[in-house]
Amino acid sequence: MPVFSNAEMARRIAGLRDKLVTEKIDFAFLHTADSVFYLSGIPLLSEWGRPMWAILPASGQSAVCGAAIEKENMEFHSAFDEVLAYGDDENVVQASLELCANFIARHSTGKVRLGIEEALLPVGIHRALQGRFPNADLIEIGPAIEELRLVKSDEELRILDLGGQLAKVGANAFLEALHENVTELAVAAHAVAEVNRAMGALSTNGLTSTYAYAQFGDHTMTPHLHPTSRRLKRGDLVALNVFPVMWGYCTELERTFVFGEPSAAQRKPLDAVNEAFDAIKLALKPGRAMSDMAQMERDIFRRCELDQYVRHGTGHALGIMIGAGGREEKGELRIYNPRKLVSNMVHSVEPAVYIPGVGGFRHSDVMVITNDGARNTTDFPRDI
Amino acid sequence: MPVFSNAEMARRIAGLRDKLVTEKIDFAFLHTADSVFYLSGIPLLSEWGRPMWAILPASGQSAVCGAAIEKENMEFHSAFDEVLAYGDDENVVQASLELCANFIARHSTGKVRLGIEEALLPVGIHRALQGRFPNADLIEIGPAIEELRLVKSDEELRILDLGGQLAKVGANAFLEALHENVTELAVAAHAVAEVNRAMGALSTNGLTSTYAYAQFGDHTMTPHLHPTSRRLKRGDLVALNVFPVMWGYCTELERTFVFGEPSAAQRKPLDAVNEAFDAIKLALKPGRAMSDMAQMERDIFRRCELDQYVRHGTGHALGIMIGAGGREEKGELRIYNPRKLVSNMVHSVEPAVYIPGVGGFRHSDVMVITNDGARNTTDFPRDI
Repeated sequence: MPVFSNAEMARRIAGLRDKLVTEKIDFAFLHTADSVFYLSGIPLLSEWGRPMWAILPASGQSAVCGAAIEKENMEFHSAFDEVLAYGDDENVVQASLELCANFIARHSTGKVRLGIEEALLPVGIHRALQGRFPNADLIEIGPAIEELRLVKSDEELRILDLGGQLAKVGANAFLEALHENVTELAVAAHAVAEVNRAMGALSTNGLTSTYAYAQFGDHTMTPHLHPTSRRLKRGDLVALNVFPVMWGYCTELERTFVFGEPSAAQRKPLDAVNEAFDAIKLALKPGRAMSDMAQMERDIFRRCELDQYVRHGTGHALGIMIGAGGREEKGELRIYNPRKLVSNMVHSVEPAVYIPGVGGFRHSDVMVITNDGARNTTDFPRDI
Repeated sequence: MPVFSNAEMARRIAGLRDKLVTEKIDFAFLHTADSVFYLSGIPLLSEWGRPMWAILPASGQSAVCGAAIEKENMEFHSAFDEVLAYGDDENVVQASLELCANFIARHSTGKVRLGIEEALLPVGIHRALQGRFPNADLIEIGPAIEELRLVKSDEELRILDLGGQLAKVGANAFLEALHENVTELAVAAHAVAEVNRAMGALSTNGLTSTYAYAQFGDHTMTPHLHPTSRRLKRGDLVALNVFPVMWGYCTELERTFVFGEPSAAQRKPLDAVNEAFDAIKLALKPGRAMSDMAQMERDIFRRCELDQYVRHGTGHALGIMIGAGGREEKGELRIYNPRKLVSNMVHSVEPAVYIPGVGGFRHSDVMVITNDGARNTTDFPRDI
């Protein structure tokens, strides 16, 4: 069965249609994997250049367009009316554009107002669209879709909660696999394997592309470093990172600790990160500004004289994060973002410092904003 | 140590500089993860919206620009002269653009000719570039870079060969994990875990983001379907897919077989795919047109009366395939591509048919074109 109910998909579609009507836009032309998945329910499987696009009119028939090898995937999951499939007999971008353009031409006459994810649309496709519709007005709708995605539904929260459970399975496996001289590769591989095995047991409808990173010693300076052949030594700082991705919904659980006894140089940043981690999670609630959370982190690290080692924001929105459209910029917990937290938003809290010669220190939990605070989907010991 | 030698990186840089000089382009502005990695040696680690860009002038100082959390990654791997890092204090695209624009302004006066990967550049960045350099000519250089990447160096082939070895480890683990009622998730997880463990042993400088798919029964109709909770039943068609990715270099090993005794309906397409698979691999050699390979597949499937079930091309170039710039369109083994094979090109051969109600049948090997034929990097039994 599709991962989302008809009611959930109808809710999303209605949300975008409301915006199209307000802006007098005839068709939304969606080209990022994130937006196509969010609005049609179809996960993009065949990446590497084969596009999947979707067309949602303000009213009337809708369509998705993707590679022939995704035909079953599209037919099974789509909440849209029509499925258009192209083969590989010609360039796939041109083939997809032709199918979409013909669909739009069949359902409209005269000048159209076409909503596009403009900032993210490649110039090549933008030009081709303009060439095919010389009289069309192309209007940016990307931010409107980001806005829709920011507050999660119960069905989305259920997936993210399952991700949290699986992250704990992965974190546990990560710790089980740690022993002197083990490679980062072996530890991360074991964590992912256990997450996937657990997912098969916990969900009869599981689909995942979960990954994990293990970073030892100086590798902790680079938070997204993929696992390598580096072997664990006693006294190494260890970064535990598990990222379940279920049906394209991302979650994360990260912990930093020492394999052995922490040195004084390691203890100080560990304590500071612990303090910020606990304080910010406790402070999350509806009505607070996202920038407040970043300010709290800044204040704590400044008091600890570690503020010069901060390298990234305090947290970000979680949800679909397949590609460029997935960052959910509006949900960044950063100094420049005064937006208010709202119930059912989902954010990572990941205060961190990166000290050359010592290492990177970061914990991350995924928090769901509730009516009066926030709940932790990835509750797991931090004093490892 | 960096994965590529100084000599290898100098070769690539000189290759693009030659093209810049010919086209009288002052600076190449690279924005796709693929091109940045290919030319600078830096793998993009922090995806999800944080850009890494690179600037290569026809002569003079070069620079890469990425997130502060990639500082060590950039400094360690870069074959370029300067590293520019931005924090998260402002929007990351704007921050990156500002650093790059300032770098270019410092190294040039007056009107510049700026080479960009135009077809793939998002409209938002294109506009911002034009705004910052109102007098610049923006000139497409994407195809020139694709051209450079198509023929592999010895160092690239060494990575792809290692990938082939690891793919066999994964395929073997896949078969070991197969038993009645096992989930696709458990099988694929085991294969990936074994690849990663083996990589830690085979390479002291391993970095991977290997993945695998297992598809049972009707799931074989969708070749890139991620593993799910579906359980194996006797008589199921099974698609084995292992995709080692080492330092961003992709390889693949795919086999289709039946768990139990094949039915007559399964046997016929299996035989046809086997025939095409063997014939095309044998036919690969320098001077043959890529379209010839597609024609051979078409002829065999037509004779077997299965040509209506073909859904994708006969194969594609392998190499860096991180993102949109990675498809290496020029290396497609398709009817519309008359380009000639050249020694040290690398291609998948993956003839396939997808028969509704029966299943998808595909083998895939990765072949390196040699002086007088091709060698197989993923030699593994197909009659499983």
